[in-house]
Amino acid sequence: MTQTPTHDHPDHAHWLGQCLILAQRGMGRTAPNPMVGAVVVNQGELVGEGFHPGVGLPHAEVFALQQAGERARGATLYVNLEPCNHTGRTPPCTDAILAAGIDRVVAGMVDPDPRVSGRGIERLRQAGVEVIVGVAEAACRQLNQGFIQRVTRQRPLGILKYAMTLDGKIATTTGHSQWITDPGARAEVHRLRARCDAVVVGGNTVRRDNPQLTSHGQGCHNPRRVVLSRQLELPDQAHLWSTDIAPTLVFTTALAAPQQVERLRHLGVEVIIQDDLTAAQATEYLYQQGCATVLWECGGNLAAQAIADRVIDRIWAFIAPKLIGGNQAPGPLGDLGITHMAQAIRLEDLTCRSLGPDYLIEANLTYCPQVAG
Amino acid sequence: MTQTPTHDHPDHAHWLGQCLILAQRGMGRTAPNPMVGAVVVNQGELVGEGFHPGVGLPHAEVFALQQAGERARGATLYVNLEPCNHTGRTPPCTDAILAAGIDRVVAGMVDPDPRVSGRGIERLRQAGVEVIVGVAEAACRQLNQGFIQRVTRQRPLGILKYAMTLDGKIATTTGHSQWITDPGARAEVHRLRARCDAVVVGGNTVRRDNPQLTSHGQGCHNPRRVVLSRQLELPDQAHLWSTDIAPTLVFTTALAAPQQVERLRHLGVEVIIQDDLTAAQATEYLYQQGCATVLWECGGNLAAQAIADRVIDRIWAFIAPKLIGGNQAPGPLGDLGITHMAQAIRLEDLTCRSLGPDYLIEANLTYCPQVAG
Repeated sequence: MTQTPTHDHPDHAHWLGQCLILAQRGMGRTAPNPMVGAVVVNQGELVGEGFHPGVGLPHAEVFALQQAGERARGATLYVNLEPCNHTGRTPPCTDAILAAGIDRVVAGMVDPDPRVSGRGIERLRQAGVEVIVGVAEAACRQLNQGFIQRVTRQRPLGILKYAMTLDGKIATTTGHSQWITDPGARAEVHRLRARCDAVVVGGNTVRRDNPQLTSHGQGCHNPRRVVLSRQLELPDQAHLWSTDIAPTLVFTTALAAPQQVERLRHLGVEVIIQDDLTAAQATEYLYQQGCATVLWECGGNLAAQAIADRVIDRIWAFIAPKLIGGNQAPGPLGDLGITHMAQAIRLEDLTCRSLGPDYLIEANLTYCPQVAG
Repeated sequence: MTQTPTHDHPDHAHWLGQCLILAQRGMGRTAPNPMVGAVVVNQGELVGEGFHPGVGLPHAEVFALQQAGERARGATLYVNLEPCNHTGRTPPCTDAILAAGIDRVVAGMVDPDPRVSGRGIERLRQAGVEVIVGVAEAACRQLNQGFIQRVTRQRPLGILKYAMTLDGKIATTTGHSQWITDPGARAEVHRLRARCDAVVVGGNTVRRDNPQLTSHGQGCHNPRRVVLSRQLELPDQAHLWSTDIAPTLVFTTALAAPQQVERLRHLGVEVIIQDDLTAAQATEYLYQQGCATVLWECGGNLAAQAIADRVIDRIWAFIAPKLIGGNQAPGPLGDLGITHMAQAIRLEDLTCRSLGPDYLIEANLTYCPQVAG
């Protein structure tokens, strides 16, 4: 794309930053759509702002242009993602932009969807609007990592989160695990959940920890709670069956007792019976349901299966300032069939930050051809 | 102690910093003595400097005063540790300071040895010398952590070092472990060894990894290599038997074959036969031999024993950006008998830094009464 000389103007980064802040108001509620924020700026003055609140509702640009009204004429529209030029559930944003008389559009990034990428920009330029693309692009990509993965790789972004001691244990030899980390780290997990469309655990976690898997008020959104349980031998009473708080989806197999299936369905739990229970199948189902970001908070065996199925893209590893030892105490990952260090799954783009007494290391997975799958 | 108004003068911190740099020239070779550096400053000009090069050799102050000669008269002596007032292997430094005509002494910290602590300062003040104590004290304590522990707790500082993947494994299910970390992290281990008086492993590590346990040119000093092996079933060929590179000490029991004991002794290895083989006994022996800092680079079982015996004070945990998984793949710590998270051994004063692609988390151990020992 052509970049104009004004591309690096500091005002652009400032207004794009405002778009990103606005975009996050839709956090957790836009999938399969992206999070988008838009502002209209006329002669240095903010005259309109908006964000995309969720599927089926208008896009961010429409709200911003509506608010700006006549003052949109000759103004600049800032938006973190290329405006759409196609009719989906709502009409094309490019039409609204042209109708409003916008002179210049500054977009954070092109639409990553290969089917429509660049068409909105092309349409605007053909109509004589100046278009600058690629301002604060890294931050724009970061915000919509899940959406980008959905449209480019046809599956949701998978995040595996675990909390371990500094000697790599997620529980004691008896399975006791509450709590590894301090409240500050746990609140960060709640914030992470608010950003995700689904959070996945195995039956063991339900039996052992009876988790809520909600954002506990750390965001405006609770993810769909997802359980993988082959035989559905799950407790009668569990936080996850309170489907008034957040939806719960259980994947199981024909091994499950029919009355247990009925009992859960009666509680409002969605129960899906599959031939086999795999991380890949569950992920595909969630993708078809529109999920862009799936958080795995499961034990080591399901986590290893999810990695072997290549549905994990990112690790969130909390490390607590504790030692518990134990050759039989569980670690975060079950068997991956790796026998030689050279086969290890490599992590990239690591960051480390402290949350109270705990550390959080984030990293991206890279799958080597010789391992898994 | 009384602190004069000039205590916080920025020059003091500067010259104490020079003392600490000088002191480190004796790194690894001063135990059971501390590392000490001294500078003589006359009217803002450095006129003498020295460091303590090792047991039986003169103290830092003596070298610095010798170099200053007549210019020590009316000058300030900076030194990271209170000058001694007692005759050990060398005469008291206080006598040399007074004889040289020093006007003022700025010391980083008092001597931590409760038998002599404060006496050097007292003697100097009685003789009319101005004494300022406690400049850059945290750094001075850090440098001589091992020495301080020796004289205050009658055992060496124990550091447990391990390298693990981000999922807490120190080897694959087959025991393969070379290499977890990158060369940068391994060079940091070599530098750590140069600061230690002994480095301890178990027989398994010798059999499996055939380590050298030297500083590989990352310091002027190789630690004594120490092996704990109950039955002395060790390979005939091993880097550790090259005692021309660094001394090697093997602790064993009566279960060892006498001809194996003789063979090792013939190679210059010191072999100590004990009733039982414990981390505590090995540590006590090393303490009696003058060690101030002992590095444990052993596998999980011996590491857990050392923690249970309370001879580990500090953790150096390298974390590599890799995942290997495996329920049976070893972690850094064997059984500690901990069944409930509340019993976990707490770590304090954590720091985290990156070394190339790897992280190093350092922490101090705190032993709770209800756990271990």
